[in-house]
Amino acid sequence: MEPRISLVTLGVSDLQRSLRFYRDGLGFPTTWDGSRGVVFFQTGGCALSLYPHDDLAKDISAEFTGPRAKFSGITLAHNVRDKTDVDRILAQAAAAGGKIEKPGQDAFWGGYSGYFSDPDGHLWEVAWGAFPIREDGSLEIP
Amino acid sequence: MEPRISLVTLGVSDLQRSLRFYRDGLGFPTTWDGSRGVVFFQTGGCALSLYPHDDLAKDISAEFTGPRAKFSGITLAHNVRDKTDVDRILAQAAAAGGKIEKPGQDAFWGGYSGYFSDPDGHLWEVAWGAFPIREDGSLEIP
Repeated sequence: MEPRISLVTLGVSDLQRSLRFYRDGLGFPTTWDGSRGVVFFQTGGCALSLYPHDDLAKDISAEFTGPRAKFSGITLAHNVRDKTDVDRILAQAAAAGGKIEKPGQDAFWGGYSGYFSDPDGHLWEVAWGAFPIREDGSLEIP
Repeated sequence: MEPRISLVTLGVSDLQRSLRFYRDGLGFPTTWDGSRGVVFFQTGGCALSLYPHDDLAKDISAEFTGPRAKFSGITLAHNVRDKTDVDRILAQAAAAGGKIEKPGQDAFWGGYSGYFSDPDGHLWEVAWGAFPIREDGSLEIP
């Protein structure tokens, strides 16, 4: 297995609402409009996909349908080059219909970060100061 | 906000067990040994991180501690160039202590795919035939 995450798929309850959030609100590029029941974004790093939550559960197996938890146990991070980007992006997410779950603040690990949730409660950390960021946007893990 | 997922963090219940699964079982490269309470992998696409589940929840806010669901609502995908890679990688994951949740099979969208779960139940789809794969391993989203 090559060490690679190709795609992250978020299960969503309203595909059009989530499409508006990511495409129009956050500016993620896509040619997909939701009419095919799924949306893909060409994002740096791994690609991002939106798919109806219950269909995603069923795609695995019938065992995975059931109640959701407030915390999925997974977070996505968007790391930025400039400290001031953190508060700016959190504000952008809130303006787009997301919720700031943790305002930007000094982190115990020495950087500055905050969290927003998307319309389904999926969590994004916006972080500065963790690792060097390469020209293509990827992180340089020491 | 640049369209980019920098890092995916999986909340885990036993950091050393998960480190063994991803590093030794799946062969993901890392110089981290868990002694600092977190592990990072330099993976293609976004980086991958392992962090104790309860600490990850608390890092967002106290609101996010609570029961887990069987399905997180998020899946990670590993897309492969060769159809035979799907069954091979599912078997590798099972040998490493994961569980094959859906054996490799023809998918309704025309490709071939299956799912395994890691020791905490985080779900990976191993998929062939979805999108062209670039030389650097990333997907070419149409």
